[in-house]
Amino acid sequence: MTTSEASSSAAIVTAAILVIGDEILSGRTKDKNIGYIAEYLTNIGIELREVRVVPDVTEEIVAALNALRSRYTYVFTTGGIGPTHDDITADSVAAAFGVSIDYDPRAVAMLSERFSPAELNEARMRMARIPAGAELIANAISKAPGFNIGNVYVMAGVPAIMQAMLDVVAPTLRTGTKILSDTVRAGLREGDIGGPLAEIAKAHPAVSIGSYPFWSDTGPDTNIVVRSRETDKLQAAMVDVKAMISAQRANRN
Amino acid sequence: MTTSEASSSAAIVTAAILVIGDEILSGRTKDKNIGYIAEYLTNIGIELREVRVVPDVTEEIVAALNALRSRYTYVFTTGGIGPTHDDITADSVAAAFGVSIDYDPRAVAMLSERFSPAELNEARMRMARIPAGAELIANAISKAPGFNIGNVYVMAGVPAIMQAMLDVVAPTLRTGTKILSDTVRAGLREGDIGGPLAEIAKAHPAVSIGSYPFWSDTGPDTNIVVRSRETDKLQAAMVDVKAMISAQRANRN
Repeated sequence: MTTSEASSSAAIVTAAILVIGDEILSGRTKDKNIGYIAEYLTNIGIELREVRVVPDVTEEIVAALNALRSRYTYVFTTGGIGPTHDDITADSVAAAFGVSIDYDPRAVAMLSERFSPAELNEARMRMARIPAGAELIANAISKAPGFNIGNVYVMAGVPAIMQAMLDVVAPTLRTGTKILSDTVRAGLREGDIGGPLAEIAKAHPAVSIGSYPFWSDTGPDTNIVVRSRETDKLQAAMVDVKAMISAQRANRN
Repeated sequence: MTTSEASSSAAIVTAAILVIGDEILSGRTKDKNIGYIAEYLTNIGIELREVRVVPDVTEEIVAALNALRSRYTYVFTTGGIGPTHDDITADSVAAAFGVSIDYDPRAVAMLSERFSPAELNEARMRMARIPAGAELIANAISKAPGFNIGNVYVMAGVPAIMQAMLDVVAPTLRTGTKILSDTVRAGLREGDIGGPLAEIAKAHPAVSIGSYPFWSDTGPDTNIVVRSRETDKLQAAMVDVKAMISAQRANRN
């Protein structure tokens, strides 16, 4: 579906998310960042193509990061940049890029805005360890910065902090032609429209048509979502979808 | 952290989740399955090691599935097994395993419990297309089955249906020694305990210690989670964690 529109065009900017943390994989913490970042990127014209969740294990983080950063325009990581021994994201990113990592005076200055010299112990100073060559991402909430190196953006796992960092990062990103979408509620069961919908999808190759069943108060129903970068093509497909729905509903009565 | 305990032991059973669907990557639908499956697997003694989310693109599904199924004891997929043109999971799984796919009489029989012959149109019959050699997973809610082939379990994306399928699958799975966990709320900021916590982690290599900051009504606080497959080792580490917390709190007052 998206394959045909995913040809290499200057207007297409892609991304992946790498979620880092044992607590997500154990189910103890329920991730709230993937859905947030996904919607955010869609809204600014960046196409999220893949997500991975990996544990707090250096080799796993390095392997996933290197796979993703070579494949997509941007990679956004969440988690593992706090002050404790299980926060190994910064070291892992440095290893992935093959660069050194050390205390960054700019990061120390940021932490000093919040912590007294006595509070700035070895644990908190871990949060000032930044890979060589990285730019910092300001953290308005708890000061400890994220960072950007190459096409990778390293952000906090705590949703409020991640969201604040994403607001800082977003204006600096290259964005593509926004994917427009339009949704119609069919008032029909998905299986009743699958056949004609497939024909419409075939007749509109520049458009991506998704079908999402749900249960409403009145029984099974389906949302049809039409997506495209081109308004006229989206509208043309939507005209066909709505005509098909009307015909099917008349047919049923 | 988990690296040392992840040595090849008969008691360790691993898993990955593969979420399939453009709607998750666009942010239109917020995934509710990853957290549910993660917690479920932890509770029955299966260690979730990785999650990937990929779009409705055959080559992406095949590549991710082959990477994951060769690496972990089990792979659970969600999404893409409905009646419309964008439901390509079954075909992609058949391609990944290099087997044929065709209408499965057992699946047709299941669908016939819900749909009349007139309703069982070409679209709905898509849901009876099952890779050769697969076993079906019953679907108590909407009848259309999932399936199991090799170490891969293909389930629906709709949470209620996925959950019903997981209940069917779970008793058939090999499970390992359950990872036990214990949590203590420190009443301290994460950065205040990072140093001594790292020492405790080093002194208890068979135990995984996680530190999770949060904001409570009284200010910043931290949950310390100790995890291990061995009760005595978990308890020994927890004794040290609690003693450290007491010392730090006394220190602060």
